[in-house]
Amino acid sequence: MLAADAMDAIRTFMAERDWAQFHEPVNLAKSISIEAGELLECFQWSDDADPERVRSELADVLTYCLLLSDRLGLDPEEIVLAKLEETGRKYPVEKSRGRSAKYDQLPD
Amino acid sequence: MLAADAMDAIRTFMAERDWAQFHEPVNLAKSISIEAGELLECFQWSDDADPERVRSELADVLTYCLLLSDRLGLDPEEIVLAKLEETGRKYPVEKSRGRSAKYDQLPD
Amino acid sequence: MLAADAMDAIRTFMAERDWAQFHEPVNLAKSISIEAGELLECFQWSDDADPERVRSELADVLTYCLLLSDRLGLDPEEIVLAKLEETGRKYPVEKSRGRSAKYDQLPD
Amino acid sequence: MLAADAMDAIRTFMAERDWAQFHEPVNLAKSISIEAGELLECFQWSDDADPERVRSELADVLTYCLLLSDRLGLDPEEIVLAKLEETGRKYPVEKSRGRSAKYDQLPD
Repeated sequence: MLAADAMDAIRTFMAERDWAQFHEPVNLAKSISIEAGELLECFQWSDDADPERVRSELADVLTYCLLLSDRLGLDPEEIVLAKLEETGRKYPVEKSRGRSAKYDQLPD
Repeated sequence: MLAADAMDAIRTFMAERDWAQFHEPVNLAKSISIEAGELLECFQWSDDADPERVRSELADVLTYCLLLSDRLGLDPEEIVLAKLEETGRKYPVEKSRGRSAKYDQLPD
Repeated sequence: MLAADAMDAIRTFMAERDWAQFHEPVNLAKSISIEAGELLECFQWSDDADPERVRSELADVLTYCLLLSDRLGLDPEEIVLAKLEETGRKYPVEKSRGRSAKYDQLPD
Repeated sequence: MLAADAMDAIRTFMAERDWAQFHEPVNLAKSISIEAGELLECFQWSDDADPERVRSELADVLTYCLLLSDRLGLDPEEIVLAKLEETGRKYPVEKSRGRSAKYDQLPD
């Protein structure tokens, strides 16, 4: 399973601090957006970001994603694989190769 | 390692479509913010979100996080664990238990 | 015009600091997302936000929106009014009254 | 006042649909982040965005900003001007000219 060890460490960390009470799904969704904004801030004025800051902010986004998965009883690896399959159906290899267009704007 | 299988599947998926060319770190950081917004949209007017939509949007955020980790040569599990340790130092158990305050607003 | 005075003040502020060079549309779009995240942070764990912080973060989002409008030669008030008209066509009063549903999920 | 006409039009629009009930500040803050993500999506894979889409998404961000201002009894133009003054104190012209550095990283 994706993140079994990380997930265990996160659960222990939160239990020690009694923080699960704040982790309503809506609050975790807000937190993911907030941290995604901090990650984006590393790239605000230049494509050349400080690797250490990026590592730290990306870790925050991931941590809240794992918390939300856990809260909803989802296995992160499983949902990534399932979504990849769905996306693969919307973006067939032969039509989407080398294109960044949205699936509804791919050539027939 | 976190997401070894998911990561392999993502890499294959992207290679088949020749999409790595679009995956500059800045574009992945933008993508994480965009997908975080779509996840948040599940909770826009109510805390009661459709589980299937949440699953799908959370998977998108996670996928872009894994892509950015991979692009930067980072191990997602490792950075989550390292950040948890840093956060633990800023939020000692005895001061932060049951509080959602920021570390610079914790009691002395 | 919306923000004529605010816009003049912003233009002077930026000119004095020679900051227009950083204000590519893509950077302003990133900045709007980043500041929107900081605004959301006021509401991260509670619906009860500090009014002073909200005022300050909302001002940042607005400022970058005005900068992007200006950069693209758009009149903020005009685009708000035009969009309201478009939205009105997607959400006819009789169908959408008292509902938060998306237009494609409104009753026939 | 900034957006007096736009604000009136927005208020009428919302009253006709009885939508003010959904416009808790926290929901408006979420909406601003969501729409900021849609604006950023115009620039996801390229700096060269479709002007029509940008106009439409920027209008959405602005509309929710005006709604939140209104809900909190704030005058958008006033808060933009007040924040500009605060920012000016953190970024004195002579130190910040031509630099995108954060105020705590400006030269002495």
